[in-house]
Amino acid sequence: MDRKEISNRLTGFGNELADEISKHKDPKMHLLQRGFNNVTFDETDSLLQLGDKTSTRSFLNIAHSRKFMQTTMIAAKCKELVDRNKTASIRELYYQLKHTMANTKENTFEDQSESDPLIVDLETMLEVLREELHLKADDKGILIGNIIIEDSGDLINCAKLGRSGLSIPSIVEHYKFKKVDAEYVLVIETAAMFDRLVEEKYHIKNNCIMISTKGQAARGCRRLVNRLNKELKLPVIMFTDGDPWGYYIYSVIKAGSMALAHESERLGTPNTQFVGMTMTDIETYKLEKVTEKLKDVDKKRISELLQYPWFQKKEWKKELQMMSDLGVRIEQQALASKSLEFVAEKYLPEKINSKKLLP
Amino acid sequence: MDRKEISNRLTGFGNELADEISKHKDPKMHLLQRGFNNVTFDETDSLLQLGDKTSTRSFLNIAHSRKFMQTTMIAAKCKELVDRNKTASIRELYYQLKHTMANTKENTFEDQSESDPLIVDLETMLEVLREELHLKADDKGILIGNIIIEDSGDLINCAKLGRSGLSIPSIVEHYKFKKVDAEYVLVIETAAMFDRLVEEKYHIKNNCIMISTKGQAARGCRRLVNRLNKELKLPVIMFTDGDPWGYYIYSVIKAGSMALAHESERLGTPNTQFVGMTMTDIETYKLEKVTEKLKDVDKKRISELLQYPWFQKKEWKKELQMMSDLGVRIEQQALASKSLEFVAEKYLPEKINSKKLLP
Repeated sequence: MDRKEISNRLTGFGNELADEISKHKDPKMHLLQRGFNNVTFDETDSLLQLGDKTSTRSFLNIAHSRKFMQTTMIAAKCKELVDRNKTASIRELYYQLKHTMANTKENTFEDQSESDPLIVDLETMLEVLREELHLKADDKGILIGNIIIEDSGDLINCAKLGRSGLSIPSIVEHYKFKKVDAEYVLVIETAAMFDRLVEEKYHIKNNCIMISTKGQAARGCRRLVNRLNKELKLPVIMFTDGDPWGYYIYSVIKAGSMALAHESERLGTPNTQFVGMTMTDIETYKLEKVTEKLKDVDKKRISELLQYPWFQKKEWKKELQMMSDLGVRIEQQALASKSLEFVAEKYLPEKINSKKLLP
Repeated sequence: MDRKEISNRLTGFGNELADEISKHKDPKMHLLQRGFNNVTFDETDSLLQLGDKTSTRSFLNIAHSRKFMQTTMIAAKCKELVDRNKTASIRELYYQLKHTMANTKENTFEDQSESDPLIVDLETMLEVLREELHLKADDKGILIGNIIIEDSGDLINCAKLGRSGLSIPSIVEHYKFKKVDAEYVLVIETAAMFDRLVEEKYHIKNNCIMISTKGQAARGCRRLVNRLNKELKLPVIMFTDGDPWGYYIYSVIKAGSMALAHESERLGTPNTQFVGMTMTDIETYKLEKVTEKLKDVDKKRISELLQYPWFQKKEWKKELQMMSDLGVRIEQQALASKSLEFVAEKYLPEKINSKKLLP
């Protein structure tokens, strides 16, 4: 959507409230409920989706008044950002709006935890992405590979960034993909494994684009993977640690997250496949000596994952069950116990070429 | 130092031990003690320095045998890395060396916490940087600005990276600075503030290189700042949150850290100056409403900083004392309460041009 359209939606939102007030009605906002109770896993498109349970925020209800006011303040500030073509971090937004109201001792906001959820309310009410409201979260992630990206007028050849790579910003809506020659995108959980593969020139030898999420993927990173897949038709293969945390990072890239279920279509990449680390790898590659014992938090997390509808595929139930039975986890970097080159010369090419990938 | 020299030092280290063994002596390693007791602040060069207190690790002392063996294993693996011109993360090193010793149930290493401190022992014994042993830590940090860096054969024009910027790797020894046109380096604590300044084109309008440390600076980032200052004679100005954590991040860039006191000369940049946030800023720019109350951990950290010899300058004692008296901290992003552009158009240029900088 272009800026004009976003700006119009924000104006429309304000006009509706103004109309109700001019008719001496109690102005109301109609919100989609969030959280586990209103999130479903859509089997057809393999994405987490927000359901249609709604709630109402009404100005004359004392329990709602403060949030009502805050939501309109955020909407007004977003309209200003969009109209001026500026972006702000969600923390800057909080600071921009925080002040003491005239003739009172009351602050508009006391803490960022008050403004953050209201941003999501606004996103769902207006059916726009946070990035389209010109708000941004922290940036995280690196990209390297044979793609030329146009960013704010600069042509960045991501194959010519040495061993350093491109830092992925929190907003990638403005990226234009100018030229690409790659067979797939390899998304890697840890920065250290990304560095290893860069050193082994894996992306050059295997003609792929590599992205490191550096742990749980930030929005910019998720959106970039989504765009590379949708717009350039590049298959996406993910490579994480063999533990419930790595598997969840995979599921967020693939199916979206509960907190951002309303944006799954633009942040999730349902046809992503998983190359490893699997529990089967431990036996196949004789890695028994470099596993680590599960801690109680790991075990608890496995049980949670086994409850999630999007982990009900037989391959994933098998992996999680095996992890639980073996009582161990395994890291990507444990492959270094074979040799430093093993991951790049044998493990990944072997599994990817023979399509030993999990859905 | 070149690879040959590093390799020779490692060989020399092994030969000395072999000599002692061939003479039926108990082989010994002589180590520099680390930690607060053997770290001093050198007033002359304004750097944290490791003292000369030593300790001995001897093979026939049962309490030392395991660490002795582990240290020699690490040295041997580092020699292999250097000779093969490969690098490894410290976690990969751990996995490469971990195995069960033949005919025993004893593992060489149980946990990475066993290998990490021995790497530092080796660094101090051989007087080499970890990077020269071809070991790397995690990468963190972004750079943008008018500098062309040669990295592994690629020429990277860091003024042409859109809003994205260059991801700073953990090893920057191989960077060659080909062309630079910048008046100073601005080092910024938070990624969000870096993004703000990129959006405002601060680096273009003020002809500077900007680096975000993303919190506490990683080694690669510290080394890069050091090299930009030493080799290109660029002044370094730092911009952090106004709290004891931000001030400590500043002091690490400037004077080095206790844990890596043996590398201060290559990681510290003593002539770094500090632009903000200061406690005085709160009054000057009327930011009282956007401060945050100190928590107990903040107060404790302030007391610690007040004890450190490198915080004994009157300007810093005043700042820390004022923070304690006011009972508040202030974030970089709180400047957004003025306007989004305020930091780039007024705060930074005003303070930097009028040299309102702390030492």
